[in-house]
Amino acid sequence: MKLLTFQVNNETSKVGIQNGGTIFDLSKLVDLYQQSTMRDVPLITNLEQLVTLNEEVMPVVRDVFAWAKENENEVSEATYLLDEVTVQAPLSQPGKVVCVGNNYMDHCIEQNVEPPKKPMIFSKWASCIVGPGEAIELPEDSEQVDYEAELVVVIGKQGKNISEENALDYVFGYTIMNDVSARDVQFEDVQWVRGKSYDTFAPLGPVIVTKDEIEDPHNLDIKLEVNGEALQDSNTKHLIFNISHLISYLSKGFTFEPGDIIATGTPHGVGVFREPQVFLKSGDRCKIEIEKIGVLENKVN
Amino acid sequence: MKLLTFQVNNETSKVGIQNGGTIFDLSKLVDLYQQSTMRDVPLITNLEQLVTLNEEVMPVVRDVFAWAKENENEVSEATYLLDEVTVQAPLSQPGKVVCVGNNYMDHCIEQNVEPPKKPMIFSKWASCIVGPGEAIELPEDSEQVDYEAELVVVIGKQGKNISEENALDYVFGYTIMNDVSARDVQFEDVQWVRGKSYDTFAPLGPVIVTKDEIEDPHNLDIKLEVNGEALQDSNTKHLIFNISHLISYLSKGFTFEPGDIIATGTPHGVGVFREPQVFLKSGDRCKIEIEKIGVLENKVN
Repeated sequence: MKLLTFQVNNETSKVGIQNGGTIFDLSKLVDLYQQSTMRDVPLITNLEQLVTLNEEVMPVVRDVFAWAKENENEVSEATYLLDEVTVQAPLSQPGKVVCVGNNYMDHCIEQNVEPPKKPMIFSKWASCIVGPGEAIELPEDSEQVDYEAELVVVIGKQGKNISEENALDYVFGYTIMNDVSARDVQFEDVQWVRGKSYDTFAPLGPVIVTKDEIEDPHNLDIKLEVNGEALQDSNTKHLIFNISHLISYLSKGFTFEPGDIIATGTPHGVGVFREPQVFLKSGDRCKIEIEKIGVLENKVN
Repeated sequence: MKLLTFQVNNETSKVGIQNGGTIFDLSKLVDLYQQSTMRDVPLITNLEQLVTLNEEVMPVVRDVFAWAKENENEVSEATYLLDEVTVQAPLSQPGKVVCVGNNYMDHCIEQNVEPPKKPMIFSKWASCIVGPGEAIELPEDSEQVDYEAELVVVIGKQGKNISEENALDYVFGYTIMNDVSARDVQFEDVQWVRGKSYDTFAPLGPVIVTKDEIEDPHNLDIKLEVNGEALQDSNTKHLIFNISHLISYLSKGFTFEPGDIIATGTPHGVGVFREPQVFLKSGDRCKIEIEKIGVLENKVN
């Protein structure tokens, strides 16, 4: 299932389910389903809540969605065309934005660094999350704003000391992040969080694809274009530490909560290590595509 | 005003106002105040909400508290003795936990490092926050868990590009954090966030003191004892970058939100730079005292 947060006419944000070019408004759908089937469905007002209630609520949401697809005529008042809505960041306030550095072999080679012996962990503050289509704002105090295409894991269950074997049980689904980075600030600060957390530096979305739709998250093409030019082009099979390992490793230290996200790292081709270097400039358009998830596109201001 | 989050008999957490050894239950107080004065008061169920509504609600809360102190007999059902309640972390889910490294001159000298030319910023994940009296749990994979006494600024107003002149307008109040750190993990990781964010590594509290009660936050004694032995003993006048500078500097990059916190750094005397080194061990008791705020005490498991 492709879940998203969307807005129509600047009204309150809603939870949607994408089916091709159609967006189903989940709360309207639930109303119709309840009227039609007399079954009770919990009220879901945002994706954070759906991810948190996950196992308790997702089976019903799947029933509702299956029913809706079979009764498209009856539920037409609960649907929008994709281009009628504004798709927003699926999650805007994850408790933790966990990021992994140097986690693609090809990215280590381009930097001429040894692949790390254990995951290299850093963070972004969630206040920098923006949605698809929102602008990446270039800050005044950086001359080196760079892009990074990343596969993001959305956690769907609280857990600590999770074994690698069971790790994928804790995954709700997957989405895309552009881990935008002010390289000059990041490297001068040494601690990366400030240079990685300027407002708008985490475009996220467009959808969370539930894990059942992605048979193997370690075999997805991941590509980034700036102004139509392919600058990153790899596959998640080149991840050094896979998702199960990351979840298990991190959960030895802290408790994962539903809605936490892990940005799993970026492949080769980032701007700072290109020759000549490429940095984002006003008017650029970044487009990230990850197979089976979708396209995350943002312009630069 | 000294605001806190507390619990009685494992019931839902409540907002309290401390007056010496007495805790006023804010929601009960508001009920009594409304009955007695027929004035309307917004419903406040947690401190996050109070900090967020701040300027809209704090004037009424001050009226309620003043009324309560004048009518102590009438409001006895809304009061507890301090030792009847469990004081919890005042805030459990700040959007950002911003930390400042090497921000006391005496702490730079003990490390034999030059004082930084600009604030050294890092982060902790909020999931490691615990309250006063809760245990600091030693993780299995660190042999070097250390303490750090810190003055914490609680942000009370959204803002970006804040000038130093206006910075204190954005402060709600002050509290205390023990910035517990697994030194071996912190230094081996290079990026500090993981070694600083093990579960229980951010004891916070006991109260948020509103800024009107602290005339000069840059002249507060700050002390830490482990098992009664004084290991840190300094004053916030030794901060290299003061609170106004920190808020202004940080807000050039990101938007502050109400409830965000800034841990302003620790003075000299941390365990890892002592000779011989001192690390926390099971059974230890850490006690931090900051003048005009209070005492934050936690045992080590």
